[in-house]
Amino acid sequence: MSIEKKIKDLAVAVKAAARTLAAASTREKDLALRAMAANLRKRRDFLQDKNRLDLDKALENGLSPAMIDRLTLSDQVIEGMAAGLEEVAAFPDPVGEIVRMWRRPNQLQIGKMRIPLGVVGMIYESRPNVTADAAGLCLKSGNGVILRGGSEAFHSNMAVLEVLHEALETTAIPASVVQVVPFTERQAINYLLACEDEIDLIIPRGGEGLIRFVVEHSRIPVIKHYKGVCHVYVDNGADPEMAKNIVLNAKTHRPGVCNAAETVLVHQEMAAGFLPELVDALKDGGVEIRGCARTCAQVPGLIPAAESDWETEYLDLIIAVKVVDDLDAAIAHIVEYGSDHTETIVTRDYQRAQDFLRRINSSVVMVNASTRFSDGGQMGLGAEIGISTTKLHAYGPMGLEGLTTTKYIVYGNGQIRE
Amino acid sequence: MSIEKKIKDLAVAVKAAARTLAAASTREKDLALRAMAANLRKRRDFLQDKNRLDLDKALENGLSPAMIDRLTLSDQVIEGMAAGLEEVAAFPDPVGEIVRMWRRPNQLQIGKMRIPLGVVGMIYESRPNVTADAAGLCLKSGNGVILRGGSEAFHSNMAVLEVLHEALETTAIPASVVQVVPFTERQAINYLLACEDEIDLIIPRGGEGLIRFVVEHSRIPVIKHYKGVCHVYVDNGADPEMAKNIVLNAKTHRPGVCNAAETVLVHQEMAAGFLPELVDALKDGGVEIRGCARTCAQVPGLIPAAESDWETEYLDLIIAVKVVDDLDAAIAHIVEYGSDHTETIVTRDYQRAQDFLRRINSSVVMVNASTRFSDGGQMGLGAEIGISTTKLHAYGPMGLEGLTTTKYIVYGNGQIRE
Repeated sequence: MSIEKKIKDLAVAVKAAARTLAAASTREKDLALRAMAANLRKRRDFLQDKNRLDLDKALENGLSPAMIDRLTLSDQVIEGMAAGLEEVAAFPDPVGEIVRMWRRPNQLQIGKMRIPLGVVGMIYESRPNVTADAAGLCLKSGNGVILRGGSEAFHSNMAVLEVLHEALETTAIPASVVQVVPFTERQAINYLLACEDEIDLIIPRGGEGLIRFVVEHSRIPVIKHYKGVCHVYVDNGADPEMAKNIVLNAKTHRPGVCNAAETVLVHQEMAAGFLPELVDALKDGGVEIRGCARTCAQVPGLIPAAESDWETEYLDLIIAVKVVDDLDAAIAHIVEYGSDHTETIVTRDYQRAQDFLRRINSSVVMVNASTRFSDGGQMGLGAEIGISTTKLHAYGPMGLEGLTTTKYIVYGNGQIRE
Repeated sequence: MSIEKKIKDLAVAVKAAARTLAAASTREKDLALRAMAANLRKRRDFLQDKNRLDLDKALENGLSPAMIDRLTLSDQVIEGMAAGLEEVAAFPDPVGEIVRMWRRPNQLQIGKMRIPLGVVGMIYESRPNVTADAAGLCLKSGNGVILRGGSEAFHSNMAVLEVLHEALETTAIPASVVQVVPFTERQAINYLLACEDEIDLIIPRGGEGLIRFVVEHSRIPVIKHYKGVCHVYVDNGADPEMAKNIVLNAKTHRPGVCNAAETVLVHQEMAAGFLPELVDALKDGGVEIRGCARTCAQVPGLIPAAESDWETEYLDLIIAVKVVDDLDAAIAHIVEYGSDHTETIVTRDYQRAQDFLRRINSSVVMVNASTRFSDGGQMGLGAEIGISTTKLHAYGPMGLEGLTTTKYIVYGNGQIRE
């Protein structure tokens, strides 16, 4: 049988299992999640044996230490996967929730009820823990899921799947609700993206190249984000201490992630008093600074920023700094160079805070808080399956609710249209 | 300049204008909608002169009377367009609405605020009144819109655009928020579907061929519905009078639309007593009946249904009738042959009503009401830009709210991540 046919059959099987899952009770789903967690802990040795196959190959291929770190199923990572599933079991079930209900003049009672999307296709790179995390979120939200991890994590992903299937076989949930594409060929992604009758949503996670490839080849709707060029705007009259803390936290708390800040915009009246202090603090934090002409004039010895710096996601201890005339100029800069991810203003002014929140339409807009809070867990959404910078369906951190849709329900007593 | 470049430029212009529109006040938008309505009435002669060009060509080309009827900008149609815009002006503004707000343990206040999607691309056939309707809904929801109507309505659509632009030029809203693609070539659709940096959502309305073409060629998310195969299930013990009225209304009130019923499922215990009565009523209503074997055994002289009847959207005075064993069999039939549009159960039984609502995940699921209520206006959503049978973003009738998304807003007082 061809790879194409095998992937299609897998998708058909997941879709059928997802129908059963959609009708499962919250209790059945939570029991399944806890069984999956328990089995991950129990089968730790098996997982690490299989993981070793991937690690050996990675060493052979000379992968970077950072890549190897992301690939490793350490005791801690396995415990994290198990604990993550138990956390998801403890979240409220989004399925069946009545979002709103209203009554029409003809007495029809109309409401919106949350239902699963159906089947989610997840395409990602390296980290094998994503396999368990995504399986848990999809199961809780009533969705089947087909996972396609990176070829470098192939044995690890298949092992995680085997352990999850063992657990599911002891529960009311059919094991087929979770599947991994058992092919490492790039072409397998194309076949997956062609299963438009079986898969309702594709979520790619990884580098920009992978995401663009998926968008280009998919007939299935894709929820994606390309990059996070997040801004901190330090307004005229902002508390300098608060501004400094927020910029430092946004840049240095974890520079390699998408909600880290990449550009600081500073109001011109803050340039003389605040900028030198900010630069010192950033340098103390090991951050390289690339300044606009006005910034460099204020603080001598900085690297001048090139035009390309304003649209770069450094994912590193580098930050671009620009002096702007006012709030309007800050907003114009963010609209021109931003990536619709997360922006924050540091201000004491009520009206400018409100204007910033209202006029910027990035997926997360903040006042006086670090961009690092732009995260499903931090924002109270439970866990997070991804962050979307496309506006359709989900925009911003996407948790369990983002994996559902709503149908209309109508209670009548014999109404017909006149 | 090539057509491709001209369409791209048009999209860029709409996107720029849409930014201004997104920040416009409700009052400014409503004044613009009323000005558009007033000018449509004032420029009726101009619209009808231009419409005549399309009508003459249609007659020359031998278009069907039904097609010509849909193409005609009669006094009544123009008044309907104007009144529609005034109605939209009277709806509440969805933009800026705070959907929900919560507080985190660290005192961050987090909310979701409705914002426009950005720019909507609308691709449709014949009816030139869609041009004004779509422009009104998009304007109210803060979205720019690029319209691409059928070539047979070209002069009419351009005339409607001209009249809307005249009106907008007297208001605070830039005229460029509404544009019509001024090319009749099919290739123009491809160029439009390639403007992924400018257009956020594509809504095709028309025959299945057009919709499939759009889905296949678009890199922009598409909200669509292919067809409406709606079901009425008459449960064991249902009130026969109510069941008869609902089936008749669902089939005959307006057979050519997507929320008309195409199949009736009848519980086996209702076959002997109810079926003959239903068949008589349907025949009196001029409906042709295609029955399953059990239906034909019960009521002699009916046309036997072929397998293909169960998945056909007749859009005509034809209905398929099937006897089923029980609720489970009815649900299984709907899942297998349905189109996820609208289904209704007629029942007196509380538990089966609840089961039907819960277990069927079509976009609209009803108890004891005609499928004809599956409509944005009837359901109280205001107007309707389309009905979606794809689950992502909008599922079911799609009104103003469906043309928005939400961003997260965060109020802090200096929070950083530890």
